[in-house]
Amino acid sequence: MKFNVGCELNYSVSSDSIFVFNIAPIRNNHQTILEEKLLITPNLPHEDYVIPNFNSQYFRIQCPAGELAISYQATVESFPMQVDSELLYEVPPAKLPIETLPYLNPSRYCQSDRLSRLTQYEFGNLAPGYSRVTAICNWIYENVAYLSGSTDAQTSAFDTVTERAGVCRDFAHLGIAFCRALNIPARFVSNYSYALYPPDFHAVFEAYLGDRWYLFDPTRLAPIEGLIRIGAGRDAADAAFATIWGSAILQNMKVYADCLDPQPPIHTTKAIANTSN
Amino acid sequence: MKFNVGCELNYSVSSDSIFVFNIAPIRNNHQTILEEKLLITPNLPHEDYVIPNFNSQYFRIQCPAGELAISYQATVESFPMQVDSELLYEVPPAKLPIETLPYLNPSRYCQSDRLSRLTQYEFGNLAPGYSRVTAICNWIYENVAYLSGSTDAQTSAFDTVTERAGVCRDFAHLGIAFCRALNIPARFVSNYSYALYPPDFHAVFEAYLGDRWYLFDPTRLAPIEGLIRIGAGRDAADAAFATIWGSAILQNMKVYADCLDPQPPIHTTKAIANTSN
Amino acid sequence: MKFNVGCELNYSVSSDSIFVFNIAPIRNNHQTILEEKLLITPNLPHEDYVIPNFNSQYFRIQCPAGELAISYQATVESFPMQVDSELLYEVPPAKLPIETLPYLNPSRYCQSDRLSRLTQYEFGNLAPGYSRVTAICNWIYENVAYLSGSTDAQTSAFDTVTERAGVCRDFAHLGIAFCRALNIPARFVSNYSYALYPPDFHAVFEAYLGDRWYLFDPTRLAPIEGLIRIGAGRDAADAAFATIWGSAILQNMKVYADCLDPQPPIHTTKAIANTSN
Amino acid sequence: MKFNVGCELNYSVSSDSIFVFNIAPIRNNHQTILEEKLLITPNLPHEDYVIPNFNSQYFRIQCPAGELAISYQATVESFPMQVDSELLYEVPPAKLPIETLPYLNPSRYCQSDRLSRLTQYEFGNLAPGYSRVTAICNWIYENVAYLSGSTDAQTSAFDTVTERAGVCRDFAHLGIAFCRALNIPARFVSNYSYALYPPDFHAVFEAYLGDRWYLFDPTRLAPIEGLIRIGAGRDAADAAFATIWGSAILQNMKVYADCLDPQPPIHTTKAIANTSN
Repeated sequence: MKFNVGCELNYSVSSDSIFVFNIAPIRNNHQTILEEKLLITPNLPHEDYVIPNFNSQYFRIQCPAGELAISYQATVESFPMQVDSELLYEVPPAKLPIETLPYLNPSRYCQSDRLSRLTQYEFGNLAPGYSRVTAICNWIYENVAYLSGSTDAQTSAFDTVTERAGVCRDFAHLGIAFCRALNIPARFVSNYSYALYPPDFHAVFEAYLGDRWYLFDPTRLAPIEGLIRIGAGRDAADAAFATIWGSAILQNMKVYADCLDPQPPIHTTKAIANTSN
Repeated sequence: MKFNVGCELNYSVSSDSIFVFNIAPIRNNHQTILEEKLLITPNLPHEDYVIPNFNSQYFRIQCPAGELAISYQATVESFPMQVDSELLYEVPPAKLPIETLPYLNPSRYCQSDRLSRLTQYEFGNLAPGYSRVTAICNWIYENVAYLSGSTDAQTSAFDTVTERAGVCRDFAHLGIAFCRALNIPARFVSNYSYALYPPDFHAVFEAYLGDRWYLFDPTRLAPIEGLIRIGAGRDAADAAFATIWGSAILQNMKVYADCLDPQPPIHTTKAIANTSN
Repeated sequence: MKFNVGCELNYSVSSDSIFVFNIAPIRNNHQTILEEKLLITPNLPHEDYVIPNFNSQYFRIQCPAGELAISYQATVESFPMQVDSELLYEVPPAKLPIETLPYLNPSRYCQSDRLSRLTQYEFGNLAPGYSRVTAICNWIYENVAYLSGSTDAQTSAFDTVTERAGVCRDFAHLGIAFCRALNIPARFVSNYSYALYPPDFHAVFEAYLGDRWYLFDPTRLAPIEGLIRIGAGRDAADAAFATIWGSAILQNMKVYADCLDPQPPIHTTKAIANTSN
Repeated sequence: MKFNVGCELNYSVSSDSIFVFNIAPIRNNHQTILEEKLLITPNLPHEDYVIPNFNSQYFRIQCPAGELAISYQATVESFPMQVDSELLYEVPPAKLPIETLPYLNPSRYCQSDRLSRLTQYEFGNLAPGYSRVTAICNWIYENVAYLSGSTDAQTSAFDTVTERAGVCRDFAHLGIAFCRALNIPARFVSNYSYALYPPDFHAVFEAYLGDRWYLFDPTRLAPIEGLIRIGAGRDAADAAFATIWGSAILQNMKVYADCLDPQPPIHTTKAIANTSN
């Protein structure tokens, strides 16, 4: 499936600042970048890199005071794997691949250690497998209000499980925390998302089931097949679209993800994966 | 119903210290103190007082370094009011007596402001009245593990609602927070408790329904009719059995509450009140 | 000293709602209300009352959907007591009046129990007395940024002592928490304030020293003599200018406090009290 | 310098459990394992692995109900790098190696995002470099009490900075949070430690300065040169000596680290590094 994705970011920079952007879709065997354009105004050099274990692509810019405009656009072909979700079992700790173990640890926004008893009460008696992670997503959808502006950059799963309001990032954090509390490795994924209104970057989470990472979106705001993967990490702290040192204000932001295929993605009950590591 | 209640408290005091004790049952038209003995060793003077709006009886002792032994015993006759709980409605904010309004405010251990949305999800659709407070108690009983030693003096309702473990004090705090989030005035009550194992002071909560305060015990550990009321306040911060300035260690503590009637209290579905203010 | 104080509050009410306002200055032997006007539009009945131990004056209104305008104005003569602050000692727990003891307890926004060690590190070695509370105010002024919009209704002293930003309410909460951790009773006071820019209700705190409550304002935003006292309580939870049940939005708010004397209040190093209980 | 290090861990296992141990010193060009013995009783198979970016060595055991005894012993030669600390500068974000950037992110126990303003107040005006991280260590040493049993597995830097008590793990977490808030990458390191009383595993932290990671120990409990490095990670969540799924109780634990050289390590003012990644 082909997508035209991208973003326009306009900053007002009041003193020499460093920006690290994570806005380019990753390249892997489920996502091909057919064409991509990055326009930086003024015309500043950028340093590209990938943090290996995050499998995310970053670029770093040093920008003097003034205006900074980032225009990124890419044509992406995605080949998500679709699996019959009933086949997907939870992997016991004795068999989990070693590189998934850190995703069982609590993190800044996903304090799974503090949610373990609640998780047992709510999900401990459910049959293990993909359906249990779906039950987690359903719980979040039914018990947490999606409310723009209700949370901020400090809000964590421990807050959200009680305060019951948040945005996609908070929904993902809570899903991750519940999974980890059940010994299911889980991580945060940032994306372009087809058919998301209002358009924005979109956060979902991934749980390790069977032999790979599968995507889950407790917000139900957009079809999972319409996600174009950008970055991943333990939680939002690892996957910001922009990290800034210095002094800059985001004045304007436009994000888009259009489907170029005649048949756009629709909601599905299949399990969907778009990475192999 | 007559009870023999009391406690023995032994402190090792390492420097001149002030103690304020709140261990004597209150005197009101539902509780009569037939006889009481207070023995302080060494024989120190004590200053007695009542904080009017708390309706609790305190005594203050100044004690030099050494040993301090407090032995308190009373014979109490209690006349709790029993009411058919189906008659008890929630009072709308427009009609609540003014002196109950502070018990709608969040307090140190009962952050009702942070639980409001969760409370709506869990209890917002239930019919108002005594039965809704009972539903709160049932929820706590079913979703929080009673575990000695699982919490400490800093644990609050905001913690317990997620960590799902605690003791009577934590159960009461959570009940209070839920009630306040539903605009039901609620407060903390400390007690002697018949048939509590292991014997100890016991914490329950009170909610204002109809025209007075009714007792609720989400722990289900002892019959409510077997409670002999000591103190009340916004939360445990207001109703400690001992507050100490200085340096002292509680070496030993014995609490008892024996029923002197042939027919001891049993669990009941009636609503029970033992104060008129 | 005479002041003309008042406020205009305009609400848009979307369903039948209850309002409790606490906007009238208290009447005591340090404050005389020479004249006062309350205009409620539409012309709704209001129920007046005082919560005794808070010594605050409230009125309650039931308002149907529509617009609600409150216009309150008063001419107040204030006679604050001025004392040489060097004479003001801290009262040892053995001698504190009983009614001050609850103001040593931690409360929702003033978790003195969690700040006790920090308080000892910062203020434990200072000479007790008024000057120690002044040192607390200086610490807050020097270590916390006054930043409108940096905090919300859930922010507490435990947050502020680390996050180091807030408004008058947060400054007062932190001062209260530090005092209580030093065994100095402290409470929250809401006020009209002469020479506050931008004009608004103003929060300060009171500490019990010598034989009464003295006012402290760690924000240094306005002279303490220019405060016209409205309400008091354990923290902001007890002293909101408006508590609302129902559904209403504050559309507009204007607060004023003009001095009618030729010599307006100035900053002073005297200790100032304006209540005797 | 040569050390004899090791541990004896005795577990009572009540149901089939999985253990992941991280007790073997890492092998790198600053640490050579001359000889090592691992004895598992009963004689269970163990699966060894290294998580690449953590550079820690783990082994995983599946153990049935019963007793489990782990005896690990190694002779280690360490070649820590000693550098004149005055030469060590802070690396600006524009120049930090990409693999250090995740160590600027807040983590479960090191909420640097919530400490940024406090950090600026305390350390923002100090000259950047090794000496500033030393100032952080001094602050922790002087302002936080080292108190066994004062904290638990949930205690984080945000708690410790106010509650001012903790153990080595808490001291390390606070140091890490302060460093990250100053844009200095910092991480948690677990160790065997010569001359630590009582003997135990020891937690310190590392900050990235100049061109590598340097060790810091705010507890001052043992000489840094006497550390034998085991694991590293974002915080204690990544570097537990044992992670257990199932049901097991640690019955007994003995840890030792003896120096085999005639001249044992002493406290030094040199900067010390023992890893190159």
